[in-house]
Amino acid sequence: MDFLEQIKTLKEQFRSDSKFPLPGEFENVVISGMGGSGIAGRIFQELYHGKPIIVNDGYEIPEWVNASTLFVAISYSGNTEETISATAKAHSAGANIVKISSGGKLSKLPGLQVTVPGGVQPRSALGYLLSPLLNSFGLLSPARDRVYRLIGSVDDDSSFLKSIASEIADSQLIPLILTLPGFTSTGIRWKTQFNENAKLMAFSLNFPELDHNDIMAFEKSYLREKFFPIVIGDTANEQITKRVRITSELTGFEFSTIRPRGESLLEKVLYTIHCGDYLSYYTSLFRKLDPEDVGIIEKLKSELAS
Amino acid sequence: MDFLEQIKTLKEQFRSDSKFPLPGEFENVVISGMGGSGIAGRIFQELYHGKPIIVNDGYEIPEWVNASTLFVAISYSGNTEETISATAKAHSAGANIVKISSGGKLSKLPGLQVTVPGGVQPRSALGYLLSPLLNSFGLLSPARDRVYRLIGSVDDDSSFLKSIASEIADSQLIPLILTLPGFTSTGIRWKTQFNENAKLMAFSLNFPELDHNDIMAFEKSYLREKFFPIVIGDTANEQITKRVRITSELTGFEFSTIRPRGESLLEKVLYTIHCGDYLSYYTSLFRKLDPEDVGIIEKLKSELAS
Repeated sequence: MDFLEQIKTLKEQFRSDSKFPLPGEFENVVISGMGGSGIAGRIFQELYHGKPIIVNDGYEIPEWVNASTLFVAISYSGNTEETISATAKAHSAGANIVKISSGGKLSKLPGLQVTVPGGVQPRSALGYLLSPLLNSFGLLSPARDRVYRLIGSVDDDSSFLKSIASEIADSQLIPLILTLPGFTSTGIRWKTQFNENAKLMAFSLNFPELDHNDIMAFEKSYLREKFFPIVIGDTANEQITKRVRITSELTGFEFSTIRPRGESLLEKVLYTIHCGDYLSYYTSLFRKLDPEDVGIIEKLKSELAS
Repeated sequence: MDFLEQIKTLKEQFRSDSKFPLPGEFENVVISGMGGSGIAGRIFQELYHGKPIIVNDGYEIPEWVNASTLFVAISYSGNTEETISATAKAHSAGANIVKISSGGKLSKLPGLQVTVPGGVQPRSALGYLLSPLLNSFGLLSPARDRVYRLIGSVDDDSSFLKSIASEIADSQLIPLILTLPGFTSTGIRWKTQFNENAKLMAFSLNFPELDHNDIMAFEKSYLREKFFPIVIGDTANEQITKRVRITSELTGFEFSTIRPRGESLLEKVLYTIHCGDYLSYYTSLFRKLDPEDVGIIEKLKSELAS
């Protein structure tokens, strides 16, 4: 499958009804994962509001993890060394363990295994990795048909993203994603897709926090010449809407804006994420790079193991 | 007090034994705050490992907040509109409320009030804002004397930071802070100090997560020409040490490194944070800017209120 075909499998991935049984009682959820797998945890954290969720991205686990914790390990390959280490520690701490992977060493560790289909790059497997979480907490089924159509609408017409990608590639500017509340994880996903697909540094900042610090640097014209700001998300909060407008006026930045489609935050987030998939893909093509290539990451992994 | 004098009050601020009584039982802690106040919550989150801590930076609160939550609101002025909004909602949700401020509207809201001395910029009040948290959870007193000496050692000799600041200012590069585990909040503090004091965009990335995405963009020489990477922290984890070395080799980046002094993570973090205070302060002077000026933020606040 070439990379564009991989991107196009996303809507089908959300048709999955894969799920796992929740423990009878638990006080908090830790989701452990790195990179293209860990982002599923960050997105879920922003969509599920029933319990505290902590996202863990390293070898260690929080010291408070115990039998009251639902610990979900996510590694598409099942061979991510940080996630394997963290999962073994969570098991020792007595946590309820669920593992989501396409196989690998993780699938052999103690705990409940959810095996998802392999065959694509981890960052193109978001639907496989996120669906078991959404399904187990009852979030996906009410929205499944709309999610399918919304994601499909980007597959059908991504020309508006192609033109932004062309601007980014031509300008050689650094994508600077400015997110509205609810879209923090979407901003991180966009950033990492720019990193891996387009081989560009990229950063995401969040309203209203950025108005307390970053804004002090927005005003300098030599910095304006370094960044390509894009606002993502929508909001019903009037103060946030005012902040975006005033920030733009005070700084003289012109913000490109991607308005999410969909009814619920879940739908809007998945729609906007898929826009970022295409945007980073096209940016890569305009830069005459291979969007699929992650050779440096592979090389690092093999040197780490040696 | 001029800004350098404000910076020099930090070591005295940690002499405070200000504290608040903890609720008899609680399952989780939410710390709500923005900018130079909110960073105290992020630092505490990384230093206290007894309960899940969620840092909240906006108008809303997580839906799961209830009577089992210790909700700590931090706003140095006491007039931060996001924190006031979040605190009122936490009160309605039945949470145990503690407020840390030098006064302001927040001090009038229901809940236990911890009033700290006023008179400096919020970002120079970190010790006032962080000490009540550290004291209440018993973290500060075992380290208080060493913290005083370590922070004081930076006040006594910051010449090594002055020379890095000179390089950053001359190069016009974007500070890119690469943190080791335990120093994520320190990286965010450095970034925001560069924003507010030096009026520079700056970003922090964390090992090992950056090896899963950002590293794909590190290799491009035109990007190397845009960033000034600085590694902060130390680690006993050999895989992390290998990652830093291999990442540097693979990307051809030369990393400046700030090695923390101190025995515990608490001491190392506070020492390293104070290094960042001076680094951003000197960078501002070399750029011929006023480190204290945050006129844009003040202007935004007044336009928001109108």
